Amino acid sequence: MRNVAVVGVGQTKFGEHWSMSLRDMLTEAGNAAIADAGIERSSIESLFVGSMSPGRYSGQEHIGPLAADALRLGNIPATRFEGACASGSLALRTAYIDIASGRHDTAIVLGGEKMTDVNGSEAITTLAAAGDQEWEASIGLTFAGLYALMARKHMHDYGTTLEQMAAVSVNNHKNGINNPNAQFRSPITVEQVLASSMVADPLRLLDCSPITDGSAAMILMSEERAKALDNPVWILGSGQGSDTLALHDRMSYTEMMATKAAAKEALAEAGISIGDVGALEVHDCFSINQIIALEDLGFCKKGEGGKFVEDGKIALNGEIPVNTTGGLKAGGHPVGATGVRQAIDIVKQLRGDSVNQINTEKGMTLNIGGSGATAVVNIFGKEME
Amino acid sequence: MRNVAVVGVGQTKFGEHWSMSLRDMLTEAGNAAIADAGIERSSIESLFVGSMSPGRYSGQEHIGPLAADALRLGNIPATRFEGACASGSLALRTAYIDIASGRHDTAIVLGGEKMTDVNGSEAITTLAAAGDQEWEASIGLTFAGLYALMARKHMHDYGTTLEQMAAVSVNNHKNGINNPNAQFRSPITVEQVLASSMVADPLRLLDCSPITDGSAAMILMSEERAKALDNPVWILGSGQGSDTLALHDRMSYTEMMATKAAAKEALAEAGISIGDVGALEVHDCFSINQIIALEDLGFCKKGEGGKFVEDGKIALNGEIPVNTTGGLKAGGHPVGATGVRQAIDIVKQLRGDSVNQINTEKGMTLNIGGSGATAVVNIFGKEME
Repeated sequence: MRNVAVVGVGQTKFGEHWSMSLRDMLTEAGNAAIADAGIERSSIESLFVGSMSPGRYSGQEHIGPLAADALRLGNIPATRFEGACASGSLALRTAYIDIASGRHDTAIVLGGEKMTDVNGSEAITTLAAAGDQEWEASIGLTFAGLYALMARKHMHDYGTTLEQMAAVSVNNHKNGINNPNAQFRSPITVEQVLASSMVADPLRLLDCSPITDGSAAMILMSEERAKALDNPVWILGSGQGSDTLALHDRMSYTEMMATKAAAKEALAEAGISIGDVGALEVHDCFSINQIIALEDLGFCKKGEGGKFVEDGKIALNGEIPVNTTGGLKAGGHPVGATGVRQAIDIVKQLRGDSVNQINTEKGMTLNIGGSGATAVVNIFGKEME
Repeated sequence: MRNVAVVGVGQTKFGEHWSMSLRDMLTEAGNAAIADAGIERSSIESLFVGSMSPGRYSGQEHIGPLAADALRLGNIPATRFEGACASGSLALRTAYIDIASGRHDTAIVLGGEKMTDVNGSEAITTLAAAGDQEWEASIGLTFAGLYALMARKHMHDYGTTLEQMAAVSVNNHKNGINNPNAQFRSPITVEQVLASSMVADPLRLLDCSPITDGSAAMILMSEERAKALDNPVWILGSGQGSDTLALHDRMSYTEMMATKAAAKEALAEAGISIGDVGALEVHDCFSINQIIALEDLGFCKKGEGGKFVEDGKIALNGEIPVNTTGGLKAGGHPVGATGVRQAIDIVKQLRGDSVNQINTEKGMTLNIGGSGATAVVNIFGKEME
């Protein structure tokens, strides 16, 4: 297996793009990544794109060749990946394995979702297709509902407080202020979170990530080719895990086995321990999920995630800076794009051109699909293994 | 890169499964493949599933973990692939690359589509999402319409006749009679094809593959593990190509550049020429597409595919037996399952337990997505390279 580098990144702003189609957004992000890498587009040999529900949001499946066509990449292999909200990370992971295997030398990875072309009710119904249609969605269990059940159980078992969950959103909004691509750039307070409208008890509006349009892209390259370029960032490891589709089939409602499996694989491949990670992007689709992620990844013990956040350990100058550009909550969550956006933000932290720049050698992304039925962990480093 | 074998296959019957969900069908096919391989399910390390539109047909995305969950495979990586009607072959190809790379040793590949839970109009609209929504589907261009344009152009440029196209369907129906999994097992005549109702001039009902429910599955294994098992069939090469999403953007309406790119890659990897292929599964979603495929793969010159079929060269005892179990036309076309089903039928021909058994050393599948925006070619052999 060969080493693989990220040599270019690009994205659209995340937000409500009333004048752009999914095609427009994939094109803008893809072109930005190509320009950032400074490569000829004719050198790109394969395309990997993550998107959850373009068929329902935009009436368009088959967006692999759509993206290759829009970006004028010729007759290259172009594949779409779907793993609900982890779709983007699946595309990235598979591109990494493809290049590491020696099959191709240069690939473009894209993620995108155009969610605002349907009304809010349809958007929620479409998102519910990430859970179990027959046993959850069909009886009205939305994603806010699923995560509310996890939050309640976490509060019951570990004494996690509403204030601790609110502190997740407060930290993410604070980090988003300097991010020009973020959907929301306003600071919020714990009091504002607790006073926002109830969505699914105990989760309130400001505990929830928004409906977002957006696309993100990156260029991956084999070691041989990447060495000629400036400032490559290396992929050190990748892991993926799954779990039962329905929440009620799990042994625990406060622990994600998919995350544990993914992290184990990725850390073993990278040859590092969790303590070596200095920048972390986690999947804060709902505030409780950031707390669960910190526990499952091993930054603190199970049940102590709320206190970990409350104590400021996830701040930019804390023990482990988390979601340094705003996460899903403030940055926005165009589902198929999120995993690629997370990777971009880690890459920029490592190569030194991020907003809210921190100083670290290694970073990790955790991208979750559904209520935890898919988890993908990717690890990046300034230096190759 | 390591050699990779197919060590087990299984499928549901293809047809109208009113009492089965997509989950039920994936489970049945997956369990059949596991039983055929004679392995413990705990030895399966990763899952790859192809499906085009479960979100629209069944209200269910995220079918990677759904399938892993239903098959009781634990927390393994489970990913869905989408490339319209080529989704199944994309899952198979990626699993092959994954195992060849050394990442995993045993994988299950699945394909499935449950198409009859929506009405016919919705089924056609959903299929149209494989083409260009903005420039084709939105103005009413269905897939029968797209292939009718190709058929007309082929007739105009090369003198291809209605009778030659009908002969494709006649051959496929003849081969389907002995196939217990085929949707239609009735012989048809050229006269019956020409007298069937018009769908999109010049394509009539019996030029068109049907709406189908079904699932297909196979077990892939690394060389080291497969050598201990009976009768493995080896994957010799895989190729994938893409083209413009919209038909009108292509240089030719009668030639698929994606097919040519995919075949070139697969043949080069296998180290063989097209003349070495002794059993062929092609994508006869509409009769004209089988003719175009034979030309693009190089079994005859461009424009001569109609005569090639008319002369009986694709018959079971012909120059190159094509779609020996009925193809998409007679066998049925549950879109996400088709590429895996094609591979199963080649594997069975090579290991010697097929219906309409022929005698050959190497076989090839060509699976097309949309109007040719995706093409995947996989090559199989009795002996490893």
